[in-house]
Amino acid sequence: MHSDSTPEACDLLIEPGYVVPVVPHAVVLEDHAVAINGDKIVDILPTSDARRKYAAARTVSRPNAALIPGFVNAHTHNPMSLMRGVADDLPLKVWLQQHIWPIEAAVIGPDFVEAGCTHAVAEMLRCGTTTCNENYFFPDIQAQTYEKLGFRVRVGLPVIDFPTAWAKDDDEYFARAEAVHQALASSKLVSTAMAPHAPYTVDDDNFSRVRDMAEKLGIPVHLHLHETAQEVEQSIADYGVRPIERLRRLGLINRNLIAVHMTQLTREEIHLCSEQGVSVVHCPESNLKLASGFCPACALMKAGVNLAIGTDGVASNNDLDMIGETRTAAILAKAVAEDASALSAPEALRAATLGGAKAMHLDHDIGSIEVGKQADLACIDLSSVETQPLFHVISQIIYAASRNDVSDVWIAGKQKLEKRVLVDMDESAVLANAHVWREKIAAVGVQR
Amino acid sequence: MHSDSTPEACDLLIEPGYVVPVVPHAVVLEDHAVAINGDKIVDILPTSDARRKYAAARTVSRPNAALIPGFVNAHTHNPMSLMRGVADDLPLKVWLQQHIWPIEAAVIGPDFVEAGCTHAVAEMLRCGTTTCNENYFFPDIQAQTYEKLGFRVRVGLPVIDFPTAWAKDDDEYFARAEAVHQALASSKLVSTAMAPHAPYTVDDDNFSRVRDMAEKLGIPVHLHLHETAQEVEQSIADYGVRPIERLRRLGLINRNLIAVHMTQLTREEIHLCSEQGVSVVHCPESNLKLASGFCPACALMKAGVNLAIGTDGVASNNDLDMIGETRTAAILAKAVAEDASALSAPEALRAATLGGAKAMHLDHDIGSIEVGKQADLACIDLSSVETQPLFHVISQIIYAASRNDVSDVWIAGKQKLEKRVLVDMDESAVLANAHVWREKIAAVGVQR
Repeated sequence: MHSDSTPEACDLLIEPGYVVPVVPHAVVLEDHAVAINGDKIVDILPTSDARRKYAAARTVSRPNAALIPGFVNAHTHNPMSLMRGVADDLPLKVWLQQHIWPIEAAVIGPDFVEAGCTHAVAEMLRCGTTTCNENYFFPDIQAQTYEKLGFRVRVGLPVIDFPTAWAKDDDEYFARAEAVHQALASSKLVSTAMAPHAPYTVDDDNFSRVRDMAEKLGIPVHLHLHETAQEVEQSIADYGVRPIERLRRLGLINRNLIAVHMTQLTREEIHLCSEQGVSVVHCPESNLKLASGFCPACALMKAGVNLAIGTDGVASNNDLDMIGETRTAAILAKAVAEDASALSAPEALRAATLGGAKAMHLDHDIGSIEVGKQADLACIDLSSVETQPLFHVISQIIYAASRNDVSDVWIAGKQKLEKRVLVDMDESAVLANAHVWREKIAAVGVQR
Repeated sequence: MHSDSTPEACDLLIEPGYVVPVVPHAVVLEDHAVAINGDKIVDILPTSDARRKYAAARTVSRPNAALIPGFVNAHTHNPMSLMRGVADDLPLKVWLQQHIWPIEAAVIGPDFVEAGCTHAVAEMLRCGTTTCNENYFFPDIQAQTYEKLGFRVRVGLPVIDFPTAWAKDDDEYFARAEAVHQALASSKLVSTAMAPHAPYTVDDDNFSRVRDMAEKLGIPVHLHLHETAQEVEQSIADYGVRPIERLRRLGLINRNLIAVHMTQLTREEIHLCSEQGVSVVHCPESNLKLASGFCPACALMKAGVNLAIGTDGVASNNDLDMIGETRTAAILAKAVAEDASALSAPEALRAATLGGAKAMHLDHDIGSIEVGKQADLACIDLSSVETQPLFHVISQIIYAASRNDVSDVWIAGKQKLEKRVLVDMDESAVLANAHVWREKIAAVGVQR
């Protein structure tokens, strides 16, 4: 670089106070800029050099903020966003059978799914999330909605042993799964995963078909697994083995598997997951709130298992806040491992970004700030009373910042949040829609 | 009330969308107003009636917000606010001995205490906290600072077996304690508590003197107790009994005791606390982050023990966010009790308000919205993407709202936060001071 060379054109130069690239691990770059062309990161270099090297069409300067890769929320049921807090403080069975399912039965359909995903995108952007791993019915509607809103997602292709509004029988589930997948072949932002619901709602035949279709289409399998002790006990009663062993025999314990929750794990199961390249999505707040148990996040990471973070749906969380979720994961892991150094802030941040990207098989494109990767980025302002004084940037993001400190977000190089304002979404329309759905859901009979 | 009667004068009428008075329990009043005269709540009534009955000097209308009693943060070390995130992800011993104590040794003094408390007040007001239970050195400086800032507090009068910057020997600790207490006799906002540090740093003689002085002055005893398994083991090694049994023999297990942490408890100890009227302050995020253990919050509440919530200091949390802390308490309690209905949202809110007030022996004045109590109040806006749709107000506050949704705060009838802006504090001066102290602390040698 000489100061007299002709500057190169680039679309966007972001100049944050700190760049936290996630790769390399635990590094904070001060006074660095990130150059973006189209949807890609093309350079990461000292800001003074960047200003000489590039003639940027636009420069965004955020001296008080840290720039991180956008959060990857590795387990969501976003259409359920409209059911936020509809029933809390209830045992899982009562919650599902007397509240969630009756409401779903009454309101579920394309409109509900579109409205819920739209609300969720607004919430996710406002907390720095740029990718989610979706798990709900009507993946076709989800895909349309995410595509329209420019949000990166894998939509789950649901498989469950009983008829739902989405499909009437096994053959229809698989036919619709393949059709949705094929229709998305050319999408840059929307891809798919097989999404068999859970070991207690999917039989061996359907799991075998899921395995074969995942292999054929080259996509991951997104599955609730070992969520509760009761699930494990029921599997032993019904199949003579724990769910993981049952799935191993069916050929599903492999690097295609995105195993969500995993609160009940033996040492051997942790070893098996590590050996076979299974990714685990830890949803600490849902696991706590539903009293499901404690995922051994630190033991998994120490065994070499790829760890990701998910919020689960807002009906059991009750938000999509990835900063809060990652913080809960980081502090809970310490108590569970009885080790205050477990799941450090840099490890937690990596799980919430690159870990999710790896689980979703998207780490070639996202999950870290590296040249050649997609420009999926979030700025977190660290200049408020709650985030000052500032000694360690990554600690401050994980342990002190809140979702409201997220100032700017980009997906594939396109700005989606600018100084806390949604760039291409009408927030008042989102809120108006929430009121409309509140009345529809309340009409079903919300009770305590 | 007739519409033709002459309206009564009152200083302030607050018209929120919802009033959550905490007493009676779990109630939400819609379209109600709270009337305030001077520092006191004088009426709670339907808004339409209030407008007829009162000619208010000022009316504050917040149709999208819930009005709650201000949070009572029942365990803080606020002067440490300037050490936010200075050392994280470390085992307790390394954290204290290699980081916290060397920094404290270098910077502690009246200036540090004043600056830290000031920073903390700004942060506490911004999250709806109106009272704290303070535990640190230089209670005289703390008292001056809180008095000046108009913030309600009990300052702890420290007792510890070794010399510190505050006192050189036992006699000086007690002499200074009594002097600070006497100097505050006429204060309306600032009171005191005896604050022996912990069972492993205070000998039997000093505990006996603490007991006698607390009785003489009529104040509670604020003590870290059963924080870790190691503390309990060490007590058995040194005294032949667990700390609670040692304190029982010393006459300290009674309704004067504010027992903080309590992660290690037998069924008998829970029963003893209930029987003797001990209050327990649960600090879930500190307990998780330092891997101290899990306080059996639900079992304590079920046994009839008064439960309060505290954030602990920001050096081990790393914030003073009572909404976040209460939410963590509520969800963690469910997993610990293996019961999704444990520590419901209304129970958690009560612990974070009235529970703290009771623990601090201030419940005749604060902790609920009742006629005759002090007007210590907070408005929480529930109209954002993250808090919509809205089905259950108390659930939404505990499980979905964030500190940034706190819009307005009053202490003793005086507005301290108005639409997110600090009314009588200079936020930029607070931030400038944080920068100054950051440099002083960094000069001591902050390391990872």
